[in-house]
Amino acid sequence: MIKSKGYAASQARAALAPYAFERRDPRAHDIVIDIKFCGICHTDIHQAHGEFPNSIFPMVPGHEIAGLVTAVGSAVTKFRVGDKVGVGCMVDSCRTCPQCQKGLEQFCASTAIWTYNSRDKDGTPTMGGYSDNLVVDENYACRMPDHLPLGACAPLLCAGITLYSPLKHWNAGPGKQVAIIGLGGLGHMGVKIAHAMGAEVTVLSHSPRKEADSRRLGADHFHATSDPATFNGLQGRFDLMINTVSAALDWNQYTRLLAVDGSFVVVGIPDKAISIEAFPLILGRRSIGGSLIGGIRETQEMLDFCGRQQVTCDIEMIPIQAVNEAYERVLKSDVRYRFVIDMASLK
Amino acid sequence: MIKSKGYAASQARAALAPYAFERRDPRAHDIVIDIKFCGICHTDIHQAHGEFPNSIFPMVPGHEIAGLVTAVGSAVTKFRVGDKVGVGCMVDSCRTCPQCQKGLEQFCASTAIWTYNSRDKDGTPTMGGYSDNLVVDENYACRMPDHLPLGACAPLLCAGITLYSPLKHWNAGPGKQVAIIGLGGLGHMGVKIAHAMGAEVTVLSHSPRKEADSRRLGADHFHATSDPATFNGLQGRFDLMINTVSAALDWNQYTRLLAVDGSFVVVGIPDKAISIEAFPLILGRRSIGGSLIGGIRETQEMLDFCGRQQVTCDIEMIPIQAVNEAYERVLKSDVRYRFVIDMASLK
Repeated sequence: MIKSKGYAASQARAALAPYAFERRDPRAHDIVIDIKFCGICHTDIHQAHGEFPNSIFPMVPGHEIAGLVTAVGSAVTKFRVGDKVGVGCMVDSCRTCPQCQKGLEQFCASTAIWTYNSRDKDGTPTMGGYSDNLVVDENYACRMPDHLPLGACAPLLCAGITLYSPLKHWNAGPGKQVAIIGLGGLGHMGVKIAHAMGAEVTVLSHSPRKEADSRRLGADHFHATSDPATFNGLQGRFDLMINTVSAALDWNQYTRLLAVDGSFVVVGIPDKAISIEAFPLILGRRSIGGSLIGGIRETQEMLDFCGRQQVTCDIEMIPIQAVNEAYERVLKSDVRYRFVIDMASLK
Repeated sequence: MIKSKGYAASQARAALAPYAFERRDPRAHDIVIDIKFCGICHTDIHQAHGEFPNSIFPMVPGHEIAGLVTAVGSAVTKFRVGDKVGVGCMVDSCRTCPQCQKGLEQFCASTAIWTYNSRDKDGTPTMGGYSDNLVVDENYACRMPDHLPLGACAPLLCAGITLYSPLKHWNAGPGKQVAIIGLGGLGHMGVKIAHAMGAEVTVLSHSPRKEADSRRLGADHFHATSDPATFNGLQGRFDLMINTVSAALDWNQYTRLLAVDGSFVVVGIPDKAISIEAFPLILGRRSIGGSLIGGIRETQEMLDFCGRQQVTCDIEMIPIQAVNEAYERVLKSDVRYRFVIDMASLK
């Protein structure tokens, strides 16, 4: 076994604290990663608070993991020692169901094995990236962009792919009108990626204070949703709207902003059920859908895209000792736009 | 002007009664149709009851119109006297907006001119197909299948295209699992058309009594939604579900029956808002959408398809004098599966 140290929640809502544990010895297809950086995703907080069913404690959160390969199993072909690698939300899946075969491991029929708060095939609880190392099958790791700062790329593994995948699936690109609702960790990646894809990007944000940042990040337009004129002026505008906020929305009001054949895609999990009249859907062949991260192949495609397009995350780097304070600030939306833990602070 | 006679509602909820009116003299691009048959759509009843905003009375309903061309304007090229033609829900549209340009006239930016209860470009109220003749621009008429009974084809103009369009748009065909919810006028067309497209078709109906008919119409499977086992046994099954019923549904329960990337499409207008949790959408990239009839080009495509595949509507033919009784029976779902008025009864 390999010794690991990290920060764990001992029980639901407990402050994260130093925690020593072990990871498996690398198998033939495994690589060992020296974790350099790990992003803090809002989901980490939900999970550490025990808000998901069947939570496993102690829990080491973290699924925006970037580091260097320090060892490879005998059969590894994708990576060599020294490579810059990333691991996102999944560390394994059944590999045989139709979804896994199509590279949609996030929808694995047996459920994917998540990077933490999940059980590996042998029943061992998985432990995430708020730690100094990781052992993972090479097929669930990705190559990180070569010429971009590794810390600012870590959040691409969840926030980045969460936006890239629906933008790609629903055909964002030149000539397309894309709206990003909410400018937080997810939303700001949506703006950067949609802009890099060539779409005309609008940010819809409650607060007019987000306008300058929106434009700096690549938005062509900005509208405050606190201004009722926004909803009258933009009817029928967008080919694709991506909702990154969990606050309750007037779904009918937003859906009317969709063009004919437009799609409204939910990636943040709303607090309440979506309530929508059928008419705005029927009168324009519009749809409301959801999207969950992306598969491994698509995550690699996204990283390669970000490498070519020089897209990184806007981050605030913190030592791991500040993780609990960072959680509080995330809950207050007080971060521009993602905390990343510098794992050197752990060593 | 051309003299017409038909049946009209003099005011909201009034019984339909004989009514004499006039239609315009044919212009260069107009054809004159001797109406032989007109289907009764549930929407006719909503409209005759004044349930849509800004209803215009007297109102001659009817938008499933089939007949013969009796005269053509000087510039008409699509039709000749004697041709079998059909007119559906639209008789004109702006013809210049992006939707009209794409053949999606039903989503015309200036709103389509509907076959009745609408205003023509000159402000004249439009009058529908419960009448002996119609004057319409040739671009809003379609050629009917040559070798099929004209009366049984009339309902294709609304019920047929309402199901054909989403089945085509969401790629029903060989290898696809399609569920049709509800076996009424719309649903039975959905079963026939989806089957003719080569999809594997399941009917989900409240009543187990619809099983024999479902199978006769082309369904491969039947499940009664009154049986709770239905929802457990079919999780993740369908690539496409089309909801033809207006009764309230448990949207979460149905959405879980969708496969990854599956779509749940509403064509009947539900009485209440759709309420759906985000999770079943996110965990499978599923979506809920709406669809409204189809454009003129697609309506012709549907008629040609039905001609090749020998798809007609199951109808009960009535004289126009029975229209009020037929309305009552439609409201009780007491028709297998569409009333068609034989306009010979009017003459």
